Amino acid sequence: MGPHPAVAAIRLAVRRVLHDILNEHTSPSGNSSDSPHERPPSPLVLVACSGGADSMALASALAFEAPKLGIRAGGVTVDHGLQPGSDLRAEEVALRLRQLGLDPVESVAVTVGREGGPEAAARDARYAALDAAAARHGATAVLLGHTRDDQAETVLLGLARGSGIRSLSGMAAVSGGPGAARRYRRPFLQLDRQTARKACMVQALPVWDDPHNADPAYTRSRLRHEGLPALEKALGKGVVEALARTAQLSRDDADALDAWASQAATAVRDAAGLLECAKLYALPPAVRRRVLRRAAIEAGAPAGSLFARHIEEVDRLITGWRGQGAINLPGKVVAQRQGGRLVIRQG
Amino acid sequence: MGPHPAVAAIRLAVRRVLHDILNEHTSPSGNSSDSPHERPPSPLVLVACSGGADSMALASALAFEAPKLGIRAGGVTVDHGLQPGSDLRAEEVALRLRQLGLDPVESVAVTVGREGGPEAAARDARYAALDAAAARHGATAVLLGHTRDDQAETVLLGLARGSGIRSLSGMAAVSGGPGAARRYRRPFLQLDRQTARKACMVQALPVWDDPHNADPAYTRSRLRHEGLPALEKALGKGVVEALARTAQLSRDDADALDAWASQAATAVRDAAGLLECAKLYALPPAVRRRVLRRAAIEAGAPAGSLFARHIEEVDRLITGWRGQGAINLPGKVVAQRQGGRLVIRQG
Repeated sequence: MGPHPAVAAIRLAVRRVLHDILNEHTSPSGNSSDSPHERPPSPLVLVACSGGADSMALASALAFEAPKLGIRAGGVTVDHGLQPGSDLRAEEVALRLRQLGLDPVESVAVTVGREGGPEAAARDARYAALDAAAARHGATAVLLGHTRDDQAETVLLGLARGSGIRSLSGMAAVSGGPGAARRYRRPFLQLDRQTARKACMVQALPVWDDPHNADPAYTRSRLRHEGLPALEKALGKGVVEALARTAQLSRDDADALDAWASQAATAVRDAAGLLECAKLYALPPAVRRRVLRRAAIEAGAPAGSLFARHIEEVDRLITGWRGQGAINLPGKVVAQRQGGRLVIRQG
Repeated sequence: MGPHPAVAAIRLAVRRVLHDILNEHTSPSGNSSDSPHERPPSPLVLVACSGGADSMALASALAFEAPKLGIRAGGVTVDHGLQPGSDLRAEEVALRLRQLGLDPVESVAVTVGREGGPEAAARDARYAALDAAAARHGATAVLLGHTRDDQAETVLLGLARGSGIRSLSGMAAVSGGPGAARRYRRPFLQLDRQTARKACMVQALPVWDDPHNADPAYTRSRLRHEGLPALEKALGKGVVEALARTAQLSRDDADALDAWASQAATAVRDAAGLLECAKLYALPPAVRRRVLRRAAIEAGAPAGSLFARHIEEVDRLITGWRGQGAINLPGKVVAQRQGGRLVIRQG
């Protein structure tokens, strides 16, 4: 008799990602047969584990699948130091990871700052710790337990910014850390939270529910416990899946449009490197606005302070020209139209 | 003393759209000075009015602004025949439109079918009646009272389909009817429902609340009264505005990608008109999938039955080729790879 369907599902998801990692790990050198005595060391894959159901399920699947593929499996748990006793809890999670057979296992304490709000600060501290741990252990990849439900929440958070399809594209299945373009993997991005939870239950894995996840002071928590359920009640049970699909489609669309804008940014310049208004005018609005945004950032405007309304005002120098004066952008950048050219520079 | 800010806001929104209509109405001939005796007749603009606050506000602003611009203003109300006494109510709305000074004013009874569910069927019948009324009266444009709140709801409904950014692009400020590419205008798409309601109140305009709008049997009603408020509670008051902005950005992005796909669909074909796999492979995934979708529809697959999973399977003939067999698509269309070409045709 095979494993419970939930356990089979989490293992399959992890196995697929481990195969990808193995393919990438061995293919760069490619010709290992040339030096038979120099076998590449078996790669190390770490799991980032909070002790919650999602990442405990992930850890259990990694511990099961990695040895079969000749991959070493380890774990890291981060102690954010935000609650009394968090250090003891982190040690407990580390112990559970060791009991699963993971090695090395590390508990890392971090200091959470304040920049960008409590959620962003905790996130920044966590990723810095994971990056450092990956580098320290020479890990090929770090697995993260984000599920399809997390992805749906991330899309809604992006939607609330109203800043376009890039912010709808959620989390990537593969993303980078410093010096490691494909460090982070999210094997559960197409798996629902319920399956991870069930997999822990049937494997009798103790899980820990972070009280922050239910704290209505956190936007994501309000979304999880009130926003999304209300949306599901209004729109039907498929909402989470639809949001996750929207993330993938938006990501691909945003990538394609960025590629177009990157190409166009060169094509619309004259011999002196200035933007030609007539050529900008001929671009589709979506591409033109991306070109203008890039030009403003290159001129020194901080990306985070550059809003849609800024770009729209610059765009009107092209599409609604009636002799407007120079337009001030963040970072003391000035945009003005001069003799059929658009000049964007720090004033 | 000027009008109440809400009244000023609805009038400004209508004035802008009437200016657009005038510009488009006079510019095609352009040289009216050549034939001084043949003045073009003053254009007629109709308002579609349910008697609710949004469209009553719209009607009042049209009645106020149109004469100042030499535009004739009329109105149409549609009796869907879904409630007892709906005919009397339609006559009452028509009377109110006449009292505003609109002329011609017409009440049109329609028969609502069942296709696509009650909301879609009512919508289809309504637009058919409006198209017919516009043609009958020779109207240049029909104004619709959709607000930013309606737009936000439409974006969420599109999000629930999870079929990509085109379904996130909501309603267009300008859209077409049969034989009239720019017939419908939505002057209030950037105005909130509260402003329209307020404008009716301060102008002492009686409004009628459609009980369907509060009926939880309707998806849009559940969204309006439960889904969106819960989302606002979780994400903050800016959600409606963010959703409306997402609609505009998504529309522009989808248009640009469609233009790219249209161009690529020609560029990836060989001399015999067959799709070349190598050239398809080189396209960004977002563009390639659009090219494949167009090719399937051109081959006879009904657009409405062609889902993302179909296109993904066809895409794997390009990106994950391992000798797969022919793939069956809706409408008896078959896709298969043959000697470096992708052949999609009705089998």
